[in-house]
Amino acid sequence: MNPLASELNEKLAKNAPEVFAMLSDYGRRAYFPKGILTQSAEAKAKAHRFNATIGIATEGGGPMYLDSIQQRVPGLEPKDIYPYAPPAGRPGLRDAWRKKLLAENPSLAGKTFGEPVTTSAITHGISVTAELFVDPGDVLLLPDKLWGNYRLCFENHFGAKIETFPFFEGEGFNVAGFGEALERNAQGRDKLIVLLNFPNNPTGYMPTPAEGEEIVKALRAQAERGTKLVVLTDDAYFGLFFHLGGDSMTESLFGPLTNLHPNILAVKLDGATKELFVWGLRCGFLTFGPGQSQGAEAVCDVLDAKVRGLIRAGVSNVPHLSQSLIQFALEAPEVDAERQAKADILCARASRVYEISHQPRFKESWDVYPFNSGYFMLIELKGVEAERLRVHLLDQHGVGLIATGKHDLRVAFSCLEVDDVEPLFEIVHQAIQELI
Amino acid sequence: MNPLASELNEKLAKNAPEVFAMLSDYGRRAYFPKGILTQSAEAKAKAHRFNATIGIATEGGGPMYLDSIQQRVPGLEPKDIYPYAPPAGRPGLRDAWRKKLLAENPSLAGKTFGEPVTTSAITHGISVTAELFVDPGDVLLLPDKLWGNYRLCFENHFGAKIETFPFFEGEGFNVAGFGEALERNAQGRDKLIVLLNFPNNPTGYMPTPAEGEEIVKALRAQAERGTKLVVLTDDAYFGLFFHLGGDSMTESLFGPLTNLHPNILAVKLDGATKELFVWGLRCGFLTFGPGQSQGAEAVCDVLDAKVRGLIRAGVSNVPHLSQSLIQFALEAPEVDAERQAKADILCARASRVYEISHQPRFKESWDVYPFNSGYFMLIELKGVEAERLRVHLLDQHGVGLIATGKHDLRVAFSCLEVDDVEPLFEIVHQAIQELI
Repeated sequence: MNPLASELNEKLAKNAPEVFAMLSDYGRRAYFPKGILTQSAEAKAKAHRFNATIGIATEGGGPMYLDSIQQRVPGLEPKDIYPYAPPAGRPGLRDAWRKKLLAENPSLAGKTFGEPVTTSAITHGISVTAELFVDPGDVLLLPDKLWGNYRLCFENHFGAKIETFPFFEGEGFNVAGFGEALERNAQGRDKLIVLLNFPNNPTGYMPTPAEGEEIVKALRAQAERGTKLVVLTDDAYFGLFFHLGGDSMTESLFGPLTNLHPNILAVKLDGATKELFVWGLRCGFLTFGPGQSQGAEAVCDVLDAKVRGLIRAGVSNVPHLSQSLIQFALEAPEVDAERQAKADILCARASRVYEISHQPRFKESWDVYPFNSGYFMLIELKGVEAERLRVHLLDQHGVGLIATGKHDLRVAFSCLEVDDVEPLFEIVHQAIQELI
Repeated sequence: MNPLASELNEKLAKNAPEVFAMLSDYGRRAYFPKGILTQSAEAKAKAHRFNATIGIATEGGGPMYLDSIQQRVPGLEPKDIYPYAPPAGRPGLRDAWRKKLLAENPSLAGKTFGEPVTTSAITHGISVTAELFVDPGDVLLLPDKLWGNYRLCFENHFGAKIETFPFFEGEGFNVAGFGEALERNAQGRDKLIVLLNFPNNPTGYMPTPAEGEEIVKALRAQAERGTKLVVLTDDAYFGLFFHLGGDSMTESLFGPLTNLHPNILAVKLDGATKELFVWGLRCGFLTFGPGQSQGAEAVCDVLDAKVRGLIRAGVSNVPHLSQSLIQFALEAPEVDAERQAKADILCARASRVYEISHQPRFKESWDVYPFNSGYFMLIELKGVEAERLRVHLLDQHGVGLIATGKHDLRVAFSCLEVDDVEPLFEIVHQAIQELI
């Protein structure tokens, strides 16, 4: 064990033995090295005469760059494009995202939680979290409608055992099933990893406020029974709340879970990706919400250092140009109105999908899973398997949808104009009737 | 084992059992899933009527975007900024980089090697390579002057055992020591991982053509003795060849190592990062050079699919805006002249450093390790330890340099103007004399 890793582990074990016990083997070994980066940081502060530590090429006091590149991004200065960003991200961006979290999640007020660490978008944040907390054989619990890449990451890469429970009970989230699954899977284990992805991919479901309270209550009850719970909230689709069929929560479960119980560590994974419509920029965030405010700053310091080490070892740092674009957008006074305008467009599409997909004439072809948020909705087909219908729709009707389960077909209304909604569902209905 | 992984493994074992034997446990499990991405790709080709598969939001046939972001990057179209790039990178960029490899590495002509896979810069390429080939306890052999992050990645993350040999013998690369280290470390092992980083960080050394031939000969001899060799060439500083003190090689060892012997798999890790002066954009490449041309296409297909799976699980995909900027720069007719102009500036600095650092009056303070390329050079201090001198230089003289070993101090001439070279070395000399 590297002495710097041991030092971090001792600090963590002293301030939060429960969190120390959650770490994976690699999580225990993780540390941020003293090396080129720390020496460069010292030089940045002190080398007023000559600084020849930097691993980039400079010219006239700024980074060297090629005109062929700079001419396409004239709205940014070279210093905000070309240098390496710090391993945890641009300080101004981390700060702006923290302010956004506080503004959009009122229950975080007065709680102690970490400074968001910038990741190369949410998948990278998920990987880093898995590196920190998942050993082979650990159980990851989540509802049975899920993004397929969780399996590739947690199961195929990290050797976790994914356990699921039925997502819905009636017209809402299956809170009773969640509580039972927690208790069942905690048997014979000290630690469980729980993944909550709301608004959800693929269902487009965000829990109601009452369901949110029940979810928190179930986690607290399990923590009180002695299970250490690493609770990941994948909030990729945060903010796109359309309240179809009733009011949903409008804040992340990360808020109520932070500082809730010493046996719970909340880990918020979110990003500019979907919220700011910048999928290709690759910019997300990872934020820790310790289980109690006492010692929480020390816990966050240790986890921040470990995560910086994991990022350094894995990708060195996160795209700087992307970070600058997102920081400046977050700081722009117009951005809230711009985001709202896009959310309104998505809301109009979602509402139209809600109206059309529920029409009685389609009842013989599918049931609609509850949805109210995000980019997607899911239908449960009657009498035909989803993969067969998908291929038929593509080959015979020129319509592309995603088969996510044996009878589940996902419709992305994020890429469907309002006027296309009715014709699309008509075709799906017709195609189903052709096959049964 | 997932059936898709088994299928890839069988294809690899049939076409190149030696390469199959090089895979790590995770490398064997790796595959590219059939899921949202493959279904979306099918829809892109066939869904001429409605395509509601896409995981982004669209508007009027293109990606949705915010004006606060687009206004800063007016030289690019939204389609080249916001959508997800494919997991292996923009096809046009992969193609442009392959052309660059062929143009700059004449010995690749007529050989069969893979299509470059785009990575989130070289560290990410290194991680992915380690995921594919390194199990705990595997030996990684490299010279004893090395980039510290190799330790954080290969040792601390993947549990490899790093073995080193003395980098220099006299005024050149220690080819005899390399051959001996290969033979010694291969004892009792079927597989060795070898990492060659030329031009080197921290020394700035690129082998001479004769040394390059000897390195290749030593690897071939060890392969003939039956050791399977995964040979990584980290070519981060490629192209910045200044021929100080004599001619160096001007092409990557990846060329001569490709199609050399069935027991050798060459893996080229390189990037736009240093070559195009875009450190913060995070764009690198990973290219496979199989040991024989027979079956090489099948080998590359399998490894490409596995790497796409590793990228998907780890970061989903690589920044699109960065890829577009680099592709368009590579396609611009002016780019060669622009790169040459910057290389000339660096060459002038390197030449001045070469001249000054070797002056006889400094002989009492340091020896200069051979250097001829890249961003850096290294001096070996006499009578004072590097860390002590580094701190003294910072605190007393406002000069920042990097301590890379007990007596080794790295000077980055990449960030040093020509006129600053002599004063800098004068101060270092004075500081050493103050301490001894």
